[in-house]
Amino acid sequence: MVRKHVVLAGDLAGTVVFAIEGASAAIQAGLDLLGVLVLSFIVALGGGVVRDVLIGATPPNAIRDWRYPLLAFAAGLLTFAFHAPVAAAPPMLLITLDAAGLAIFAATGAEKAIDYAITPLNAILMGAVTGCGGGVIRDLLLTRTPLILMADIYATAALLGAAVVVVCRRLNWPPAVATALGCLVCFVVRMAAVQFHWQLPRVA
Amino acid sequence: MVRKHVVLAGDLAGTVVFAIEGASAAIQAGLDLLGVLVLSFIVALGGGVVRDVLIGATPPNAIRDWRYPLLAFAAGLLTFAFHAPVAAAPPMLLITLDAAGLAIFAATGAEKAIDYAITPLNAILMGAVTGCGGGVIRDLLLTRTPLILMADIYATAALLGAAVVVVCRRLNWPPAVATALGCLVCFVVRMAAVQFHWQLPRVA
Amino acid sequence: MVRKHVVLAGDLAGTVVFAIEGASAAIQAGLDLLGVLVLSFIVALGGGVVRDVLIGATPPNAIRDWRYPLLAFAAGLLTFAFHAPVAAAPPMLLITLDAAGLAIFAATGAEKAIDYAITPLNAILMGAVTGCGGGVIRDLLLTRTPLILMADIYATAALLGAAVVVVCRRLNWPPAVATALGCLVCFVVRMAAVQFHWQLPRVA
Repeated sequence: MVRKHVVLAGDLAGTVVFAIEGASAAIQAGLDLLGVLVLSFIVALGGGVVRDVLIGATPPNAIRDWRYPLLAFAAGLLTFAFHAPVAAAPPMLLITLDAAGLAIFAATGAEKAIDYAITPLNAILMGAVTGCGGGVIRDLLLTRTPLILMADIYATAALLGAAVVVVCRRLNWPPAVATALGCLVCFVVRMAAVQFHWQLPRVA
Repeated sequence: MVRKHVVLAGDLAGTVVFAIEGASAAIQAGLDLLGVLVLSFIVALGGGVVRDVLIGATPPNAIRDWRYPLLAFAAGLLTFAFHAPVAAAPPMLLITLDAAGLAIFAATGAEKAIDYAITPLNAILMGAVTGCGGGVIRDLLLTRTPLILMADIYATAALLGAAVVVVCRRLNWPPAVATALGCLVCFVVRMAAVQFHWQLPRVA
Repeated sequence: MVRKHVVLAGDLAGTVVFAIEGASAAIQAGLDLLGVLVLSFIVALGGGVVRDVLIGATPPNAIRDWRYPLLAFAAGLLTFAFHAPVAAAPPMLLITLDAAGLAIFAATGAEKAIDYAITPLNAILMGAVTGCGGGVIRDLLLTRTPLILMADIYATAALLGAAVVVVCRRLNWPPAVATALGCLVCFVVRMAAVQFHWQLPRVA
């Protein structure tokens, strides 16, 4: 019961953080108010929508439940109204909040896939889709190749966090522990990657 | 019974108008005959397909029923064959037909979402997705940021029309009245926006 | 029984060929290892995932069954490790393998749609989506207008192969014959189009 509330609280917090990022990207790209709200919705909820469609959990949470879009739109609208302070926020704060959002989405995304009887490898992928899907759709709408395919340890951190959740659940550890550990691993890997400039290999 | 036929007739008319627009965009972008037919299908039916996938009404209408793709392809083929007169049509005629198509799709899209027990806020969003989704996918395929995110009162008109449908249905007005009023509001707002050059605010 | 194994073998072979192509495109575009694996997955399995979502067969095969993603990732990883010999392969070999993959996906895609009671015209479209969908998503991720919309007889070959499958099944021919004939027609048309530089018409 407590766990359910913690997961919900985390989910809503992640939605707000990602919606602010989506709105900021839209403002930077010169979109109008509608574009800002659309990107708030998509960055915050797009990954979860794609996951739900793929695992057969339709209508997706964000379409079934009016609180998610309302929250995303509210965060987007506030970002639009107070764009100057948001744009002036220290980058490290944004990166840290983003890493926290990524961790929550990756861990809870993998967990939902497991609950829908998705096999382990695919559940890990679904965790990464939940965490990174919104950002990929944002990049497509702004017509740029998704950043996560080119640089940074970002989706990789999500995959690792999701993998921890899946392994813990296979070991029959309590779901609360699995989620917490998965979040922690994703967050730490992401922050370490930023700190130490880790990059994946590429063909020279 | 009469209403059902009117809605179907409107739906088919909207499909034809949007298919012609999709084909015209494809021809202008230099695509070949296949590209023209694909864009006819996507602009005409893509919004409804996305809506149906999201509300869990699969297979979507356009995939279940062969008349929709046939109609879209026929309209695309005719546009390909007679591209010169289509390209020479007065812009205001195209804008008016497009506004009518948008109005029909937004109103019927919201209504279908309500029939699938989607909550009001999300039903409004589904109306806008039905009306604007095809154009967004067209822009992605032609690798340009969707116009509706950057300028014009277009998706906004769809949202308003869909909202009217949802409110009327909540007030238990007859569905025929709800649909008609929603269409009217969307159409009038869109045409007024074109006439008076209304724009949404953006961060300067 | 034998047919089922032949179809499965073909399906897996097609997955490997398309995954290698996806990985090669990612390497050429300068993506990192994660980008290579993502494009391997998407080019190999994206078309089938879209088809399954559209015909209501969720979770899609590639999300339900861990062997498909594993195979795609393995092929992508090997392409990453041995990119020099892959890049040095004679173009005609790649084109031939690609045509074989396209033929298999188009024929089996149409067949699966028929098994899900999709009407003939739409089943043909689903065959083409299965064969070409992954390549389209690849082009979107690399922000270029999908090649198949602009040039070449590629999706057209997939449509013809799928149409053969649908017609044979309507004539109550054995599924094995339908699949084999559909594959053959798609493959031959595609190779002839390459050989003789066939192009679809376009508006000058």
